[in-house]
Amino acid sequence: MYGWNCGKPVAAVSLGPELAASAAAASYDLQAYRFQAAPEQLRPPRVVRVGLVQNSIHAPTTAPFVEQRQAIHDRVRQIVDAAGAAGVQVLCLQEAWHMPFAFCTREKQWTEFAESAEAGPSTRLCRELARKHGMVIVNPILERDEAHGDTIWNTAVVVGNNGNVIGKHRKNHIPRVGDFNESTYYMEGNTGHPVFETAFGKIGVNICYGRHHPMNWQGFGLNGAEVVFNPSATVGELSEPMWPVEARNAAIANSYYVGAINRVGTETFPNAFTSGDGKPAHKDFGHFYGSSYFAAPDASRTPSLARNKDGLLVADLDLNLCQQIRDKWGFRMTARYDMYAEQLGRYVRHDFQPQVIKDPSL
Amino acid sequence: MYGWNCGKPVAAVSLGPELAASAAAASYDLQAYRFQAAPEQLRPPRVVRVGLVQNSIHAPTTAPFVEQRQAIHDRVRQIVDAAGAAGVQVLCLQEAWHMPFAFCTREKQWTEFAESAEAGPSTRLCRELARKHGMVIVNPILERDEAHGDTIWNTAVVVGNNGNVIGKHRKNHIPRVGDFNESTYYMEGNTGHPVFETAFGKIGVNICYGRHHPMNWQGFGLNGAEVVFNPSATVGELSEPMWPVEARNAAIANSYYVGAINRVGTETFPNAFTSGDGKPAHKDFGHFYGSSYFAAPDASRTPSLARNKDGLLVADLDLNLCQQIRDKWGFRMTARYDMYAEQLGRYVRHDFQPQVIKDPSL
Repeated sequence: MYGWNCGKPVAAVSLGPELAASAAAASYDLQAYRFQAAPEQLRPPRVVRVGLVQNSIHAPTTAPFVEQRQAIHDRVRQIVDAAGAAGVQVLCLQEAWHMPFAFCTREKQWTEFAESAEAGPSTRLCRELARKHGMVIVNPILERDEAHGDTIWNTAVVVGNNGNVIGKHRKNHIPRVGDFNESTYYMEGNTGHPVFETAFGKIGVNICYGRHHPMNWQGFGLNGAEVVFNPSATVGELSEPMWPVEARNAAIANSYYVGAINRVGTETFPNAFTSGDGKPAHKDFGHFYGSSYFAAPDASRTPSLARNKDGLLVADLDLNLCQQIRDKWGFRMTARYDMYAEQLGRYVRHDFQPQVIKDPSL
Repeated sequence: MYGWNCGKPVAAVSLGPELAASAAAASYDLQAYRFQAAPEQLRPPRVVRVGLVQNSIHAPTTAPFVEQRQAIHDRVRQIVDAAGAAGVQVLCLQEAWHMPFAFCTREKQWTEFAESAEAGPSTRLCRELARKHGMVIVNPILERDEAHGDTIWNTAVVVGNNGNVIGKHRKNHIPRVGDFNESTYYMEGNTGHPVFETAFGKIGVNICYGRHHPMNWQGFGLNGAEVVFNPSATVGELSEPMWPVEARNAAIANSYYVGAINRVGTETFPNAFTSGDGKPAHKDFGHFYGSSYFAAPDASRTPSLARNKDGLLVADLDLNLCQQIRDKWGFRMTARYDMYAEQLGRYVRHDFQPQVIKDPSL
C-alpha cells in the first residue's frame, strides 16, 4: 500500500537512542526513513536529509498574543534543535506555524500575528536556527507586507543554511470552504512558482490548499523542483480521505519528492462562531490530524506521523531518483504542454466553447 | 480509507440473486455500489447506473486471430448482457478489449486487430448491444484509420443508447515505459478532450497512460465531463502502487466521477521478447491486475474488482454530486487558469527560463 522503493518497502532509519529518548520525554513523535535510488555510473548519489515539523499551539488562544507566539517558538525551537542534532539539512515547518489557525473566527484581531517576511520574529528565529545548524529552513508564516499597503499574504520564507533569507513564495490558491475563511484575510499570491536553489537541492513550496490544484504542483516541477513541501493546516472532517492521495499523486505526476505537513491538535477560540453548516455556534476548529508524510516519485511513501502529537519526520532522499523516474516513465516528455497551453488560452477567454459532442440521435 | 459519501461509507447494492448466480457460474466478479448526493430544492437527483467491464483474453495468442477476437467478443457479450439485465445505462470496456495487449512484442502482425472506429467488428458488436439494452457503450479499440494512410490510433468509440456512433476520442499520451512499446504502434491522439453528451450524462474518456497526466484529466473537466472513464491495461510490477492514487486524485481535483478499468490476466505470446531490464527473454507481459473501481468527487471510492478474474462493476452515480462538490470546494473558481495559460505559453518556448531563485550566499 505504501509502494516499493528500489524493490523494497521504504526503510526505517534509526536516529539513535538519545534523540528517541528526548522525543519521548518531550512528547513528540519522531520517525525517520530512507528513500534510495539506483546507483549511476556518471553521477554520485545525492542524498539529502530532509525534515518535516508538525506542531500544535502551546498556549491557550485566550493568552496574550506575545505569550502564544513565544510558547510556539519555544516548542518549535526544541524540535528544530533535535532536527539539527539528527543532521537534517532541509527542514520545513507547517503553514502559519507561529500562530493559532484563527481564520475560522473571521475576527480581524488575529492579523496582529502577521509579520514581515524578511525581519519578523519568526523569520528571525528561523535565521538563528538555520545558522546554528547549517540548515535550510522553510518558514511558512502569515506575512504583513507594509510596503504594499499592509497587504496580508500567506507566505513561505526560505532561509538558507547560512541564515540568510533566499526568498519567499506566496500561497497561490486561497480556499473558501468550511471554516477556512482564508479569502477574508489574504489574497492570491503574486510570486509565481519559484524554485529555490539551496545548498542541498532545488525546493519549492506548495502551500496548503494548493495541493488540490494539480497545475500548482506542476508549476514547481516545470521550474525544476526536486522536493516540494506542502505545509498545511486541515481538519479531519473536511479532508482526511484526500490526505494520502493528493501529495502522493503529485510526487508521481511530477517526478519529485513531496513532504506533506499538517498541523496537529484542536484549537479552541474565545468567541463562538458558526461554520455555515447549520450547526450551532461553537468555539473549536475541529481536529487538525497531523499525519505528515513523505512521498517519492516512484509512488512509494513513508508512514505518517501521529494524528494527535507534535512530530518530526526525517527522511534521507536520494535526489537522483527524480531524474531516474523521469527517464523511466517519461511524463514530462509525453506531456504535450503545447496542447494544454492552447487549451487554457482558449478556456480563459469569455467566448470559450467547451468541446462537446452531442448524441445527434437525441 | 475509502472515504465517506454523504457521511457514510459507499453502500453496496444488491443486483439480485439471479445475476449473482450467473456471474458465479460464468466465473466473473460482480459488484455494485451506490454514490449519493445531498437532496436539492431546485434539481431532482440525477442518478445514472454506470458499469465497468474488465476482461482477460479467452483464446491463446497462438490461435488464429479471428478465433481470438471471437472468443473475447463472446465473453464480453455475456458480461454486457448481464450489465443490460442489471439496468446499466452507461458502460465502459477496457482499453483495446478486443485483442491481446501485444505491444510488448514489438511485432507488427498484431496490428491486424486494428479496425475501423465506425464500422469494425468490435464497434458493430457494441452497436448491437447498445441498441439491445438501450445503453451507452464506450468501446476502446485499436483503430485503423484508412482515410489517413492506415494510421493506427488507440481510440475510444462512444456508442449512443440508440446504437449510433456519437464520436470518438484518441489517446492523447502514449507511453514508452517497460514493455509498453506503444509509441512503436500508434501516435499521439488528435481529437483534443471531447466530452460526449449522451442520454445519461456528459462523459469523457482518459485512455490508460493519460491517467498519469493531470492536465489530461483536467481537459475533460474543463469541457464539462461528469463521468470520466479510464480504460487501461497495466501490470502489477510497473504500476500497482499508483493505481489507487491517480484516478481517485483526478475525481477529487476535477469534481467528477471516475471509472478506472484495468485489464486482467497474464498474456503469453508465441515468440520470446526482452523487456529492456537486463532479464532473459520471456513470453509473457506480467500480470494485468484488474482492480477496477469507481472514485467520486467527494474523495470516496468503491472497493476494487478482483485482481485475477473478469468482472463487472456497477455503480449508481448521482451526478448532482459533481456540482455540489464544485460549489463546496471551489477548485474551478480558485484555479487561476490565466496564470497557468501564461506559464505554459512561456514553458513551450525554446527560450524558456525556469523561475529559480539561487541562494546568493552560495
